[in-house]
Amino acid sequence: MYKIEKIENQKLSGVCLSEGFYADGMSAGLKPNGDKDLAFIYSDVVCELASVFTTNKMAAAPIHHAKGVTQTNFIVINSKNANAMTGKYGIEDLEEIVSSLTQKFSTLHNPLMSSTGVIGVRLPKDKIIQKASEFDLSVKNSLNASHAIMTTDAFNKEIAFKISLDNGDVFNIGGIAKGAGMINPAMATMLAFITTDAKIEQSKMQEILNDVNKMTFNAASVDGDTSTNDTVFLMSSAKSNVTIDSSNEKMFAHALNLVMDFMAKALVRDGEGATKLVTYKIRGAKDNIEAEKVAKTLSNSLLIKTALYGEDPNWGRLAMSIGASGVACDETKLTISYDDVVLYEKGVNLFNDEIEVLAGNVMKQAEFDITCDLGMGEGSFDAYGCDLGYKYVEINADYRT
Amino acid sequence: MYKIEKIENQKLSGVCLSEGFYADGMSAGLKPNGDKDLAFIYSDVVCELASVFTTNKMAAAPIHHAKGVTQTNFIVINSKNANAMTGKYGIEDLEEIVSSLTQKFSTLHNPLMSSTGVIGVRLPKDKIIQKASEFDLSVKNSLNASHAIMTTDAFNKEIAFKISLDNGDVFNIGGIAKGAGMINPAMATMLAFITTDAKIEQSKMQEILNDVNKMTFNAASVDGDTSTNDTVFLMSSAKSNVTIDSSNEKMFAHALNLVMDFMAKALVRDGEGATKLVTYKIRGAKDNIEAEKVAKTLSNSLLIKTALYGEDPNWGRLAMSIGASGVACDETKLTISYDDVVLYEKGVNLFNDEIEVLAGNVMKQAEFDITCDLGMGEGSFDAYGCDLGYKYVEINADYRT
Repeated sequence: MYKIEKIENQKLSGVCLSEGFYADGMSAGLKPNGDKDLAFIYSDVVCELASVFTTNKMAAAPIHHAKGVTQTNFIVINSKNANAMTGKYGIEDLEEIVSSLTQKFSTLHNPLMSSTGVIGVRLPKDKIIQKASEFDLSVKNSLNASHAIMTTDAFNKEIAFKISLDNGDVFNIGGIAKGAGMINPAMATMLAFITTDAKIEQSKMQEILNDVNKMTFNAASVDGDTSTNDTVFLMSSAKSNVTIDSSNEKMFAHALNLVMDFMAKALVRDGEGATKLVTYKIRGAKDNIEAEKVAKTLSNSLLIKTALYGEDPNWGRLAMSIGASGVACDETKLTISYDDVVLYEKGVNLFNDEIEVLAGNVMKQAEFDITCDLGMGEGSFDAYGCDLGYKYVEINADYRT
Repeated sequence: MYKIEKIENQKLSGVCLSEGFYADGMSAGLKPNGDKDLAFIYSDVVCELASVFTTNKMAAAPIHHAKGVTQTNFIVINSKNANAMTGKYGIEDLEEIVSSLTQKFSTLHNPLMSSTGVIGVRLPKDKIIQKASEFDLSVKNSLNASHAIMTTDAFNKEIAFKISLDNGDVFNIGGIAKGAGMINPAMATMLAFITTDAKIEQSKMQEILNDVNKMTFNAASVDGDTSTNDTVFLMSSAKSNVTIDSSNEKMFAHALNLVMDFMAKALVRDGEGATKLVTYKIRGAKDNIEAEKVAKTLSNSLLIKTALYGEDPNWGRLAMSIGASGVACDETKLTISYDDVVLYEKGVNLFNDEIEVLAGNVMKQAEFDITCDLGMGEGSFDAYGCDLGYKYVEINADYRT
């Protein structure tokens, strides 16, 4: 047995709770308003690294650079510029930055880079190199780093957990993430940096990361677009006394799931202009694959997202969208509920004035569930989605300026 | 050779230009503001009928009723209520309406029904039956019918063409349509009623309708949702002297394409709150299937639609979305243009202050092209899309009320 304690929004939280990790965030002048836009995460020992990258075929330079790397102790991250669609210049700029870091700091091993922001513009590499030369690798300030990686995010995302075993041993896991737009079920679709001091083999860590990713980041959707830069990095310093093997890997997966589920929900809650976090609970699908298909179709439907924003319990759009998803379904077997309020049950429309008030009250909440039981089998999947309002249009109608 | 003359927005246009057809539209009290909400289309001879229906698995009662029918001379259409997700009651209500019509008007053969509007509410059948009993089948007023089938449409859609052959023979083809929201590339996704007086076998007419549908309605997208009620009906009275066979079927396909292309563009231009009609011209894809995939991904992308609304020539989002679509692509082979203004060419970002002004001017137009040449092969596809602005949110946040 083990005990899990949550620690968030402290300097010694996020990526810095785990033993051996350092981080900071600062302004390199990429954001015109002087906000933080450059961060690093450093470990004083070489770490095992597990990664998940975007499935976008126009993947950005940092993805090409990091793919295949399984050990590192340093990640530099910039916001405001994605270094995507920058071709060989993008790779050259990145390599120049990384090489200046290696020259400056002798302890770096395989330094990696992550970028997020505007597509198609070359990195302001001189500004980055200049500021990066001032990095103080002895600083532990995860909060600063979590702010520096934000783009259109309304708030920073930072979380960590301390896991205490019955024998007194302790290990830590935590991370920072950025999200907002371009959050899409096709892959992780954001930047997330997770550190742990558990001792774990790289291949085992990668396997667990892939599994947890499917149920967390891959279940989150803001607007259905998959970015060119999505990355999840999970680094292990192995500095704790806890060794993860087949006997206790479920404990590690559980802790990692807490970190990534927190992040995934925070990303959706912070979807550009979003006011509501909805968990689409699909039950009774033919199989889990069809359940996932329905969950993602619903969470991406513009008509459903705008009805959520209007707090309009328009179950007809849910039925329409389930039908449009192409899975096995039957209107006489379908049941639709908003939290505990059943609106449509196996062919019978229960909607009336009383139900409208009850469902309207559910929708006034910042978080609620929409459950669709298809009545076709045992398949199930949960997906996270948000509403779409005027603010999304405002943010995205002129993002570059 | 033949000459084609366009005729629109007259009583004797739309579905009434073809010989033998009658139509009218009136208020049955379904729309609280007293606007027209009930229409009929009648032919004084039994017609061959070709149809395309939604692929939505929750297809509405009128779809179940009409599927498989290949001859009719009457269609009654109501707006404001979709008769979808109404189960056996939906079928019963429809059958009661149709049977009252058959009793009242002895010349009807296989009368069909189409419905559009809110999902999940039973038809106000008594109001419909009452008003339908007053139909005057000798009226030729296509304009009235085109107005009665509107829901959130900002304008009616009505078009017809007179085709004059060199030998002096003439045939006509025309129709009415309604669209606005739930317009999606997965299928036709609106109601369209087309009449012709050309003599043509049902199977040949169905084959040509399927072909033309792929390039017109199926290429149009407003919000990526496929409705429960989408229907295209094409009726032939065979009252002209022109017989369509393999020697002249291209002429018929050409005329039908003019009708359906006009309708498809009108639907997108009238997408809820849309201010711009964009034709996505995909060139150089590996094959036509991949070109279509890209075209539909771009035309459905929220990030691209909002950038269009903001008149922001953000070509990076196009590149991102092409990459996300999963087709074969390579940033060093891709070229992106807005009308004739090239923004990105085979790995080189041409964007600068001058190009920004030129591209901005293109985007100020009500209609323009975005051309993406993938440089991977010979595949091509054109899709129609629109922007997404505040008005879409306003219309859809509380549609039911």
